[in-house]
Amino acid sequence: MAKSILGIMGPGEKATEHNLKCAYEIGKLAAQSGYVVLTGARPSGVMEAGLRGAKEAGGQTIGILPSKSKSDASPFADLVVVTGLNSARNYINALTADVTVACGVEAGTLSEIALALKEQKHVVLITENKRASEFLKGLSERLVHVATSPEDAMAIVHTLI
Amino acid sequence: MAKSILGIMGPGEKATEHNLKCAYEIGKLAAQSGYVVLTGARPSGVMEAGLRGAKEAGGQTIGILPSKSKSDASPFADLVVVTGLNSARNYINALTADVTVACGVEAGTLSEIALALKEQKHVVLITENKRASEFLKGLSERLVHVATSPEDAMAIVHTLI
Amino acid sequence: MAKSILGIMGPGEKATEHNLKCAYEIGKLAAQSGYVVLTGARPSGVMEAGLRGAKEAGGQTIGILPSKSKSDASPFADLVVVTGLNSARNYINALTADVTVACGVEAGTLSEIALALKEQKHVVLITENKRASEFLKGLSERLVHVATSPEDAMAIVHTLI
Amino acid sequence: MAKSILGIMGPGEKATEHNLKCAYEIGKLAAQSGYVVLTGARPSGVMEAGLRGAKEAGGQTIGILPSKSKSDASPFADLVVVTGLNSARNYINALTADVTVACGVEAGTLSEIALALKEQKHVVLITENKRASEFLKGLSERLVHVATSPEDAMAIVHTLI
Repeated sequence: MAKSILGIMGPGEKATEHNLKCAYEIGKLAAQSGYVVLTGARPSGVMEAGLRGAKEAGGQTIGILPSKSKSDASPFADLVVVTGLNSARNYINALTADVTVACGVEAGTLSEIALALKEQKHVVLITENKRASEFLKGLSERLVHVATSPEDAMAIVHTLI
Repeated sequence: MAKSILGIMGPGEKATEHNLKCAYEIGKLAAQSGYVVLTGARPSGVMEAGLRGAKEAGGQTIGILPSKSKSDASPFADLVVVTGLNSARNYINALTADVTVACGVEAGTLSEIALALKEQKHVVLITENKRASEFLKGLSERLVHVATSPEDAMAIVHTLI
Repeated sequence: MAKSILGIMGPGEKATEHNLKCAYEIGKLAAQSGYVVLTGARPSGVMEAGLRGAKEAGGQTIGILPSKSKSDASPFADLVVVTGLNSARNYINALTADVTVACGVEAGTLSEIALALKEQKHVVLITENKRASEFLKGLSERLVHVATSPEDAMAIVHTLI
Repeated sequence: MAKSILGIMGPGEKATEHNLKCAYEIGKLAAQSGYVVLTGARPSGVMEAGLRGAKEAGGQTIGILPSKSKSDASPFADLVVVTGLNSARNYINALTADVTVACGVEAGTLSEIALALKEQKHVVLITENKRASEFLKGLSERLVHVATSPEDAMAIVHTLI
């Protein structure tokens, strides 16, 4: 039977310390709960931090790469899915993760959140950006969950998976 | 030389009267300015209203369809691009439009806006949703433009194309 | 109502003189018959020759670009659909063309032919490669049509569109 | 470090007994060699036989699904990548597999082979269709390898990965 997959999304090069710490912790907690951790595979920002957190806790990881070359992926991705689709791969991230946790919100992450909501999938949001959480909560009261910490986010995830 | 393309995005089945009127007017004004009008091709909501506005003003239209069958498209699309990609086609909408005007914001439209911003493309927003415009303006002061009417939106578009 | 679209597929940089002449003639004849000509948009080989043939006969053209930048397209494409999907855009070519004519067969073209057949769409083949025509005819006697000249190919196309 | 992935491609509903046995054996041998087995995820034909072979030998499996719903996947896929891209997902299969083994050739499989060759990736072919092997070998002497049995195919794979 297919394993449960938790997506961790967030900024790449522009990730803040808060985003990175969030992603690392979520990755660790997800691995400890037996979830496979999925990110966008690039060796940068939230993508790499989430994968690293999962690997350091002994978990399993999968990365969905936008480019055409497997060697572009983070070394913390056990399985690299090479799409060559540039940011159209964000749709695959949204569909493949059973639930997505967003650590921070910029344009790429926002597209993943929006595509997840479009497909009726749940998103847990950890952000200091109040406008983001209020706006997204307004888009879907039912599917958008705002968490205050990685532990809080994982408690929400457990109720959803 | 390739023609200039204006994307009109917005809700499908959930479009409000305000969204539909906005899309129709933008379609009409775009055609009068010689732009090709692009939408998501479905015979519904803002997609169809934008195409219809352009056709009734004698313009040219193109629809980028998520499904696999050309017959799913609005009759107001002169050219139907059949993608079979479901909502991954939103990325093509974002990349193909020289500028995108969003008449209203729900999940699908939000993904198109976010993907356009990710690719450094300008978006003009007409919405009564204050949270949406404030949040998106906060994401990119430079690329997000808030308009108060179709005429205002087209004036902004002219400065961008 | 949506216009009829004829796809012209074939090698890019490796196109032979025979392939290029074939594509140019098909483009010209398609335009004269009122079909919109679709190719893969790159300024090279069969893609450009087909678009040029159509434009020089006063026809309308559309190019489906694999890269992310509209400026990569052939100047003979009136409408440029920017996909950013690399060779996954071949699926869009296959689905969007009402019928596809292949002038020559290499790996990229073969993928377009195969995807068209997968979706139950007709393909007309002009090639000096006997193995190709025999093998593809063997894959689908019904959907694969082998033509001996551009005029012959267009006669077949007329029976299909 | 990312694991090595062997793709097993071939017909779905139309698979022959020979195709199914081939896929099952390749799956088993791949698992025994420590490769992750990748297929198109559907619970049918070569896709399911390859996954089942790998699982029954204690291996790890990944399926790349064309549809939008994880529940459409074969129960022998450990990890299900949900693309929603219909047959555009064939490009992801081609790019993600380090090497692809084709057990039989029909339209969908042919598109995967062609896309792999387009991206300069090696393909090992097991088929009773002589026209297929001669034609494909003619397309790329260097990248296309014809095997006479699953054991023979795996010996070739070992020299390539």
